[in-house]
Amino acid sequence: MEKINILSKYSEFDAKWSPHSIAELNGQQVLLAKVKGEFVWHSHIDEDELFHVIKGKLRMDFRDKTVEVLPGEIIIVPKGVEHRPYAEEEAWILLFEPISTKHTGDVIAEVTKNEYPKI
Amino acid sequence: MEKINILSKYSEFDAKWSPHSIAELNGQQVLLAKVKGEFVWHSHIDEDELFHVIKGKLRMDFRDKTVEVLPGEIIIVPKGVEHRPYAEEEAWILLFEPISTKHTGDVIAEVTKNEYPKI
Repeated sequence: MEKINILSKYSEFDAKWSPHSIAELNGQQVLLAKVKGEFVWHSHIDEDELFHVIKGKLRMDFRDKTVEVLPGEIIIVPKGVEHRPYAEEEAWILLFEPISTKHTGDVIAEVTKNEYPKI
Repeated sequence: MEKINILSKYSEFDAKWSPHSIAELNGQQVLLAKVKGEFVWHSHIDEDELFHVIKGKLRMDFRDKTVEVLPGEIIIVPKGVEHRPYAEEEAWILLFEPISTKHTGDVIAEVTKNEYPKI
């Protein structure tokens, strides 16, 4: 029951597209990630995924549209929906999703992480 | 798949200790609440509860300690742990918890809400 300062947790890592876990509750995890450039198209069959932008600008590409998400904004990608996150400049995001969620869904790419460090 | 601006959602209600739901995913809900003054002591038998302070200062009382939570900080109250939120001045908080979570647990008080409006 200690509080967690989100911004200060970002100082503990620098790798891009590498989620770090700051908390778990109710089978869900709270992840922080620094992102820059283009991620891979993927989807999660069984998991909805919440993205909350903390700093910078996240562009979420869907097959039929693109949404720009700014600090203080969230977007939820429903299960099964293909998406590709993109950030022209470095952005910091917070994700909320089930612990079971695989980084790139059933896509295996060079960027794929199988484990998320706990910080 | 529309983005949600958290701050602008707060302009849609003013009642204190009355959570409003802005999103649901994976059986969880994202709630916004404006709080001021003292809430009731309660616990949730089966649900962990995440509090994220958006504005102001939240004091979380536990039976054996008190934690002050500031904007950009989160605190997770594990299932079964008695807690009493308090805010000397109005504070805005975001909660993340299972949809099944009852407002004041098994305590029924004047402040208890049985339903959370969706905004």
